[in-house]
Amino acid sequence: MDIELVTVGTELLLGFTVDTNSAEIGRALAEEGVRLVRRTSVADRPEEIAAAVAGALQRSGAVLTTGGLGPTRDDMTKTVVAALYDAPLEFDETVWQSLLERYRRFGRAPAASNRTQAEVPRGATVLPNRWGTAPGLWLEGEPGLTIMLPGVPSEMRNLLAHEVLPRLRGRGSGKVIRSRAVRTTGIAESTLAERLDDIEDELEPLSLAYLPGVSGVDLRLTAWGLEASDADDLLSAGVARLTAAAGEFAYGTDDADLAAAVLDRARRAGLRLAAAESCTGGMVGTRLTAVPGSSDVFVGGVVCYDDRLKTLLLDVDPATIARHGAVSGEVAAEMATGALTRLAADAAVSVTGIAGPGGGSAEKPVGTVCIGVAGRGPVETARMVFGGNREEVRARAAQAALRMLLGRIGSGDG
Amino acid sequence: MDIELVTVGTELLLGFTVDTNSAEIGRALAEEGVRLVRRTSVADRPEEIAAAVAGALQRSGAVLTTGGLGPTRDDMTKTVVAALYDAPLEFDETVWQSLLERYRRFGRAPAASNRTQAEVPRGATVLPNRWGTAPGLWLEGEPGLTIMLPGVPSEMRNLLAHEVLPRLRGRGSGKVIRSRAVRTTGIAESTLAERLDDIEDELEPLSLAYLPGVSGVDLRLTAWGLEASDADDLLSAGVARLTAAAGEFAYGTDDADLAAAVLDRARRAGLRLAAAESCTGGMVGTRLTAVPGSSDVFVGGVVCYDDRLKTLLLDVDPATIARHGAVSGEVAAEMATGALTRLAADAAVSVTGIAGPGGGSAEKPVGTVCIGVAGRGPVETARMVFGGNREEVRARAAQAALRMLLGRIGSGDG
Repeated sequence: MDIELVTVGTELLLGFTVDTNSAEIGRALAEEGVRLVRRTSVADRPEEIAAAVAGALQRSGAVLTTGGLGPTRDDMTKTVVAALYDAPLEFDETVWQSLLERYRRFGRAPAASNRTQAEVPRGATVLPNRWGTAPGLWLEGEPGLTIMLPGVPSEMRNLLAHEVLPRLRGRGSGKVIRSRAVRTTGIAESTLAERLDDIEDELEPLSLAYLPGVSGVDLRLTAWGLEASDADDLLSAGVARLTAAAGEFAYGTDDADLAAAVLDRARRAGLRLAAAESCTGGMVGTRLTAVPGSSDVFVGGVVCYDDRLKTLLLDVDPATIARHGAVSGEVAAEMATGALTRLAADAAVSVTGIAGPGGGSAEKPVGTVCIGVAGRGPVETARMVFGGNREEVRARAAQAALRMLLGRIGSGDG
Repeated sequence: MDIELVTVGTELLLGFTVDTNSAEIGRALAEEGVRLVRRTSVADRPEEIAAAVAGALQRSGAVLTTGGLGPTRDDMTKTVVAALYDAPLEFDETVWQSLLERYRRFGRAPAASNRTQAEVPRGATVLPNRWGTAPGLWLEGEPGLTIMLPGVPSEMRNLLAHEVLPRLRGRGSGKVIRSRAVRTTGIAESTLAERLDDIEDELEPLSLAYLPGVSGVDLRLTAWGLEASDADDLLSAGVARLTAAAGEFAYGTDDADLAAAVLDRARRAGLRLAAAESCTGGMVGTRLTAVPGSSDVFVGGVVCYDDRLKTLLLDVDPATIARHGAVSGEVAAEMATGALTRLAADAAVSVTGIAGPGGGSAEKPVGTVCIGVAGRGPVETARMVFGGNREEVRARAAQAALRMLLGRIGSGDG
């Protein structure tokens, strides 16, 4: 089954809104074996909407629209589509009652204009919207299939998942496009590619893409046009294979977060963690505390942006700073050890670096970052140079700190 | 002048890539008075690209394409468009030499397939791409105007700004759509609307939109279809008027960042700042240190996620925690005072709260946040309850902390 997407909204064309719905819809349809062949965005004008929907139906026989279902005069999608199907709009008492019920729940009174939201093209199936006021509509007839969804992302997403995809499931080709990802960090794309060179052929018919970003290189495996169960089996096997081949550089799959992996491993090992941050200014702490339930593992941290604070709060020897500079393995080591002691943790990570744009030198260019990890054994340090702007250097530094911490906890050496 | 946008890429339809180019292009065109009337996305298939471009030219007489200009077999845009114009592809020595020069600079050798990137449809103007390998192309003839740009966002953005918009400038209607924003924080949308009720009429013909988000409510003023100079004059006056009306809740315009405003004001007042964070876990520090040059103002902070650290590092009295709870104005006050003293700063802000999803109670529901600010005068505290999920509560809490800090510095009371 082929389908087109028509997104309606003057805001989209003016660029006031970034259209994230389209990517979500594309992924969801491909996963169900429905091929999205074209996406069109038009303004809130009846003739533009009519031309786009009619063209899509003529080419592909099916169209999904988003937007233009609200109660204001701008909201023209339903009226326009009803006209294409020669279907008069009829007031639907059930829709109206559930709208009234929704308003009651929020302690508000519906406006007169809300009544139009209860109008349904004759012959259409109402897709109940428990997440907002505009119901979705499913209209099938002479011109083809038109599915209308609201443009609000949360409403679109829920209606798509709960009302649209189950109805489309039987109509797909049976051949789906599905993806999984293995997340790696701390290894360059080219090095990773060499390491995976041998197994790339064995992954077929899955395709493998390398997606480098500030958090590392994601490996995306895609199954193209396979039966759903074959796709899932192949992807599971492929993910296992890639994870094994990437070794200590792999930290999870799909939406996995390195901070969550660190917390999990520390929790299992019964370790409490601390952070000492300079150039990252609190990003390591922010990442760890973004994970619900982190408080039983992460005790806290120190942001010692000023060098005096490195001494005041972490007992870094001013002589070490004078001799090696604030961005040095020696200072990173003392910061980590200081955090371990002063914050009474079992393992501590430190970051000190030059995020730029200023502050670089020939010996220590912008992007130079030193990381330390202290625990039960001797303190470890690493020095690296990251590319990118200030924000990218900082994000890469925080990710590298979490990676070193994960490795250390994994060693059983706290 | 009307124009359509055709974005080319199977990845876009599959939702593997979110199309951020489209919004950028829409904004930039509207600012120059060129009306974007339709956006279409198609897969990397010659017949789909041809149908979309031909349809756009027929309807609107002008089309801008992105994507499909690279060196691989997937990259079909140039070939397809050249055929629509009956223009043979010709090898362009100048383009080839600049490609070779670019490869030399990066110490790489071009692949044989790169030669196709130097092929230009007869009659096309080459738009030199100093930001990548695929030049843009400007092709005007019988079917209309076709502008081809690469899909890589940084290359698209630079070519659009430096090569395309200057050439389109003369062709627009002369009537532009331009926007400016006044950023506010710490005031509810409804309260702000009441406050601005009187002046809304006076802003005409500008439209005013309220855009609430985690950082506060942005006020977007838009000039629709005016001469460029009139639009700019009206927008400047409107921004001044809104800023005055929003009073202490306005912190800047357009892309202004509250953390940068805090640092500016502290720098002018000669004050050094510190932060003591619990539920935000380092977000206040992260925001302040994201601003280049923050090190002369922000000395650092303490992330005291564990209550013991509040005492160890900030001298919070355990009895205060026992009596009032860790999330209380009393603890926020002691955290701020502790940070001021221990970190030797002139002003310090503290945040303690319940970000959720767990940890709430009837008396202190999820979203409860207490903030303290200590400086020369007596310590101030505030308690608020934020909506949203864990990340939203944390982002709103960090923003509120920065806002209180800004107000305190502004009072001249450090």
